[in-house]
Amino acid sequence: MASLKDIGVAAAINILSAFIFLVAFAILRLQPFNDRVYFPKWYLKGLRTDPTHSGAFVRKFVNLDFRSYIRFLNWIPDALRMPEPELIDHAGLDSAVYLRIYLIGLKIFVPIAFLTWAVLVPVNWTNSTLELAKINNVTSTDIDKLSISNIPVGSQRFWSHLVMAYAITFWVCYVLFKEYAKVASMRLQFLASERRRPDQFTVLARNVPPDPDESVSELVEHFFLVNHPDHYLTHQVVYNANKLAKLVQKKKKLQNWLVYYKNKYSRNSTKRPFMKTGFLGLWGKKVDAIEHHESEVEKLSKEIAAERERIADDPKSIMPAAFVSFKSRWGAAVCAQTQQSRNPTIWLTEWAPEPRDVYWPNLAIPYVSLSVRRLIIAVAFFFLTFFFMIPIALVQSLASLEGIEKAAPFLKPVIQKSFVNALITGFLPGIVLKLFLIFLPTILMIMSKFEGFISLSSLERRSASRYYLFNFVNVFLGSIITGSAFEQLDSFIHQSANDIPKTIGVAIPIKATFFITYIMVDGWAGIAGEILMLKPLIIYHLKNFFLVKTEKDREEAMDPGSLGFNTGEPRIQFYFLLGLVYATVTPVILPFIIIFFGLAYVVFRHQVINVYNQEYESAAAFWPDVHGRVITALVISQILLMGLLSTKKAAQSTPFLIALPVLTIWFHRFCKGRYEPAFIRYPLQEAMMKDTLERAREPNLNLKGYLQNAYIHPIFKACEDDEDEEEVLNEKWENESVIVPTKRQSRRNTPIPSKVSGGSSPSLPETVQELPQP
Amino acid sequence: MASLKDIGVAAAINILSAFIFLVAFAILRLQPFNDRVYFPKWYLKGLRTDPTHSGAFVRKFVNLDFRSYIRFLNWIPDALRMPEPELIDHAGLDSAVYLRIYLIGLKIFVPIAFLTWAVLVPVNWTNSTLELAKINNVTSTDIDKLSISNIPVGSQRFWSHLVMAYAITFWVCYVLFKEYAKVASMRLQFLASERRRPDQFTVLARNVPPDPDESVSELVEHFFLVNHPDHYLTHQVVYNANKLAKLVQKKKKLQNWLVYYKNKYSRNSTKRPFMKTGFLGLWGKKVDAIEHHESEVEKLSKEIAAERERIADDPKSIMPAAFVSFKSRWGAAVCAQTQQSRNPTIWLTEWAPEPRDVYWPNLAIPYVSLSVRRLIIAVAFFFLTFFFMIPIALVQSLASLEGIEKAAPFLKPVIQKSFVNALITGFLPGIVLKLFLIFLPTILMIMSKFEGFISLSSLERRSASRYYLFNFVNVFLGSIITGSAFEQLDSFIHQSANDIPKTIGVAIPIKATFFITYIMVDGWAGIAGEILMLKPLIIYHLKNFFLVKTEKDREEAMDPGSLGFNTGEPRIQFYFLLGLVYATVTPVILPFIIIFFGLAYVVFRHQVINVYNQEYESAAAFWPDVHGRVITALVISQILLMGLLSTKKAAQSTPFLIALPVLTIWFHRFCKGRYEPAFIRYPLQEAMMKDTLERAREPNLNLKGYLQNAYIHPIFKACEDDEDEEEVLNEKWENESVIVPTKRQSRRNTPIPSKVSGGSSPSLPETVQELPQP
Repeated sequence: MASLKDIGVAAAINILSAFIFLVAFAILRLQPFNDRVYFPKWYLKGLRTDPTHSGAFVRKFVNLDFRSYIRFLNWIPDALRMPEPELIDHAGLDSAVYLRIYLIGLKIFVPIAFLTWAVLVPVNWTNSTLELAKINNVTSTDIDKLSISNIPVGSQRFWSHLVMAYAITFWVCYVLFKEYAKVASMRLQFLASERRRPDQFTVLARNVPPDPDESVSELVEHFFLVNHPDHYLTHQVVYNANKLAKLVQKKKKLQNWLVYYKNKYSRNSTKRPFMKTGFLGLWGKKVDAIEHHESEVEKLSKEIAAERERIADDPKSIMPAAFVSFKSRWGAAVCAQTQQSRNPTIWLTEWAPEPRDVYWPNLAIPYVSLSVRRLIIAVAFFFLTFFFMIPIALVQSLASLEGIEKAAPFLKPVIQKSFVNALITGFLPGIVLKLFLIFLPTILMIMSKFEGFISLSSLERRSASRYYLFNFVNVFLGSIITGSAFEQLDSFIHQSANDIPKTIGVAIPIKATFFITYIMVDGWAGIAGEILMLKPLIIYHLKNFFLVKTEKDREEAMDPGSLGFNTGEPRIQFYFLLGLVYATVTPVILPFIIIFFGLAYVVFRHQVINVYNQEYESAAAFWPDVHGRVITALVISQILLMGLLSTKKAAQSTPFLIALPVLTIWFHRFCKGRYEPAFIRYPLQEAMMKDTLERAREPNLNLKGYLQNAYIHPIFKACEDDEDEEEVLNEKWENESVIVPTKRQSRRNTPIPSKVSGGSSPSLPETVQELPQP
Repeated sequence: MASLKDIGVAAAINILSAFIFLVAFAILRLQPFNDRVYFPKWYLKGLRTDPTHSGAFVRKFVNLDFRSYIRFLNWIPDALRMPEPELIDHAGLDSAVYLRIYLIGLKIFVPIAFLTWAVLVPVNWTNSTLELAKINNVTSTDIDKLSISNIPVGSQRFWSHLVMAYAITFWVCYVLFKEYAKVASMRLQFLASERRRPDQFTVLARNVPPDPDESVSELVEHFFLVNHPDHYLTHQVVYNANKLAKLVQKKKKLQNWLVYYKNKYSRNSTKRPFMKTGFLGLWGKKVDAIEHHESEVEKLSKEIAAERERIADDPKSIMPAAFVSFKSRWGAAVCAQTQQSRNPTIWLTEWAPEPRDVYWPNLAIPYVSLSVRRLIIAVAFFFLTFFFMIPIALVQSLASLEGIEKAAPFLKPVIQKSFVNALITGFLPGIVLKLFLIFLPTILMIMSKFEGFISLSSLERRSASRYYLFNFVNVFLGSIITGSAFEQLDSFIHQSANDIPKTIGVAIPIKATFFITYIMVDGWAGIAGEILMLKPLIIYHLKNFFLVKTEKDREEAMDPGSLGFNTGEPRIQFYFLLGLVYATVTPVILPFIIIFFGLAYVVFRHQVINVYNQEYESAAAFWPDVHGRVITALVISQILLMGLLSTKKAAQSTPFLIALPVLTIWFHRFCKGRYEPAFIRYPLQEAMMKDTLERAREPNLNLKGYLQNAYIHPIFKACEDDEDEEEVLNEKWENESVIVPTKRQSRRNTPIPSKVSGGSSPSLPETVQELPQP
């Protein structure tokens, strides 16, 4: 247990390292040769080009203007200056709303900190329980004297904590309510004010049933012509283009090399560049590099053309899914919100994600498979959370001295050297665990992908909620009740429902100092490290030095990354959890959390404005998750306080605390009903308003042309960009299904008007016969 | 604990009483003067009239045809003979599907009974644990020898119970899956094949926002004309007619008296009937009865007219809700399934219930109030379930000897007589409890009504699930672990999650004999009593003797009752729970349950065909609840078996059992996704098919005329039936809102095309201004 002095030392170290990071950042960002690392967003937007000073060559790389170093902290006001509407315009609504999460942290915790310091700290301080205990050799620190531990068992002072719990709950709910309303209206306004987008008109229809007589395209056309006759406009089927994507990738690489050699030759036309065909150009036949690459590109082009031909002709390469576009937003809103077919597992319709948000490989998973996958992943995640220590312990035992000696006896002499020995015993187990934790978001993302979500945004949302759960079980509970998650699970099963909050509650005040250090390391220094962008900086310069051949390559070497909702948001939520749990118990922790939120807000605002690339725009669809997790943290804090107080023999106050989680959960349900539909559905009133406005403004809009190519697999678009001669083929696909006469045998002799004939359900004729004849 | 002999005696008594009920029924139903009690359904359908034998006067009341008594059990094959489609036609889909629940009981338990008797009974029987225990003075019965208690701790024989648990789970899930599919298709077919119904075209819009410029009717008209321009047809606002309903009721009574006196006078025209105006006609001024009633009716008619005028003119009597009708089923399906407004708590749309299914008083509850009501009722139900013994104990203590003596000292001499004394001490507490249990369904129904459901069917569904929970906690758990529910709750909170199933599991085999007796009393004799209809029989004859004045009164004295989903279904579900819990533990119980299901099926089929009146038709909307509760029972049985086995030191089998609830819950979710939408939404494909067919058949259908009066408050319809002269007024209302010019000031100078102008959202102008101008 750390004393106040230890905390001071830790704080000094962390503040120092954070400061070093910030200074390093301030210096590095001013160097022109780092420009693409620290301002990639502006390059991507085409608003900034490589700095070309007219002066000396060295000034192209190093900033010699010393005046600029004086103002090295200027980036902070710069980051804060951009107003929110402009930020939305610049970086999208997702980023702007994401930044609001930090602001909510400040809004929630600053008043709570004042309140608890004004009330609880004096109440806790003016007791002497711990001093008395010290006589009995119970260790305690100065920080503990400010916490609830210092109040004697059965004291009436616990009423103040109870009242505080009510005040905190009320305040958090109030802030959350206001914020939900604000974000919901921001979302609706964003959707209303933004310019025409293909996903406003388009619905993704999945699980198109197989039909022996008609192709997927014909089937989709008929189904929607029949069931949405006034609104259906066009559709695009989804091709399985994984192989093609690989080929195109390969060709792109070769073309880059070709450009590079051509450049080289043009600069020095006396010497034709040669290369070796073998591995990495190290051995093999020596050939003319330009000619070789030209022929290779030629070969690949043919292969690609053949593959495209195959995709176009082979009905098996068409997935049973389609993007269906409508004449109006109203038509699309209707189709996305309704059930199409009698069988609710086919013809599933939902809003199409933005084209860049689509996760193509998952579009074709049938319903039964989806449901099985969900079960598998639920079980797998359970084991991952509670038993993840088992494989790691295995690997760690393998990575021990004996393990290595057994597996690779020839390494024995090396290992027995004392330095290597120390390294293995001291670091390897830790590194194995760290490696696992680094790969955890990737593992969670793979799980989400396997589960079958169809947009990147939903993949990230799902991963985020899993990551939060994992953090809660393994970091929060794991730190409070030391022991692996599995041991916790085992002990919880064997404890009564009443005892679990007690066990955790009692341990909470003891762990306050640990979490304070955690906040300083992860929250302060970690965030300051974020702005330094050390990894992208190094990678960019390495790439720039070794691999960049053309200007295009340099652009690709620039890796701004993105906001990373799936890892970033659970991290913030962890601070909400800590803050709410400790607000009534050890309010000393709150200023540390407030500093985290403030620093992180500034840093991430800077990053969003200057660095991160926006991968997709989900219009803040993640907000219900954020809201739900803060509520979860609040309920957890209430239950733990209940457990803690009941061990303090303040039993008469417990019934008053039971009302808190009930009210909080009710509040959550109320908010859910009130605001969540705004994040899932699209109100018809809005759709109709936009449609009417648009019709009045652009009566001659060619919507079909606008929508026709919107949802082509990105790989076909990539091809188009490169080669125009292939566009004819594309055109062919895009237009082929404008009028599709029915080829269906079974329909030819049904007496129903032809409009019905496209219905997909095999049971249609039966139903018709069962209807009472007039 | 009952021995095999005790069980035999109980069985004999209950079989005898059931037999007596059946014989009594067989005799009573053949008497013509009971005809209206035992065949009211046919009277209501107009297919049967009072038996008018040409013979002696006595034959009008007593059946003297002795041959008919010989075939006194003929009603059983008669009840079974009607095929299901005809039954649906005769009594509605709800009743037909309700009967299927009993059939499922048979389908589930007959094979399970065979299997468990073939496997588990021998396995249990061939041990001697209990005989050994008997030496140590542990009592046990012959039935226990057939149960799992007879297997020694740690035996390998528990594997057979484990395998059985898997087999049972598989079989139950299979039957449920098949049945869900069957019921879903029956529902869709019913919806598709039935004739045109107003609710197919109509949507209920609630929470119409208040508007200072327009009336509710105008607002609704504008909103739907703007947002569903191609589909909106007409609408009907909802009037608050509670006072009018009372007046009409009163008038009806007076009119009945008038008819009675007129009849009396016409039969005996010499003597004009007189009556006294005071209380119950016992004192007061003597007046001419016919004249008096005529003037009273006249007076009331005027009052009613005034009230109607008031309702028509007073805007406060219009509730913020409306039934909106569309030109096609497609349009209604779209509107019911989509969100209308930016604010998801106003303009809530959902399928309109059938006109006779609407629960009118709840149509006007605003969203926030709904959400608060839900919280209040949830808390109230929690207390009702776990603390209901407290007020009852209070009343019981009041109803004790001392209590009565204190409250009413003048009764002292009466009480001290030994007979009254015995009555009070012996019966009163039991009667108080019984009274509470009799009123429980009513209390639950009142709770559901307070919660704000808008159709009778949903009220009954909600009450049913509450009743099931109450039964589970207080009857099932309460019988197994004796003690009040509150004591159970207290002990559960203080037990570990692991111990709860153990505590219950251990007690289960011991209680088998108790539940066998329960089944015989409640299930056998109770069901046989149901067919006798003792209460309606007595009430009918009492009414017939004292109150019936006219033929109309006689019709009203006939009280067929209805199926009573809210009490009947939880009762069946209790047998599912018992059967599934005991299937692996004490299979001896299964034959008793099978007899219950068989008997109940026959009895209720007879009742549905001959007696019960159909209150509404929800097209089997309750099925997801039924399915869910059987699944709940299955999961409970699995968890309890787990607890039981873990106390038997068969620990190695427990991990295999954990998979069962996981798989079962997954199966439930799968079924929910697969079939539940069929019970909530209306697929567009179906709607379009029916629309197209109808258009082809009846191109000149006047749909507006058909729909205009469909959703008038029943009280206005009742008036219409009585008096034609008031129809003009009705007409006025029904037609008034065909064209409503906007009176709104704020819209007159907006530059947007008039189509948008009806939008209700006050934020509309802002939004429009925020849109980018072209």
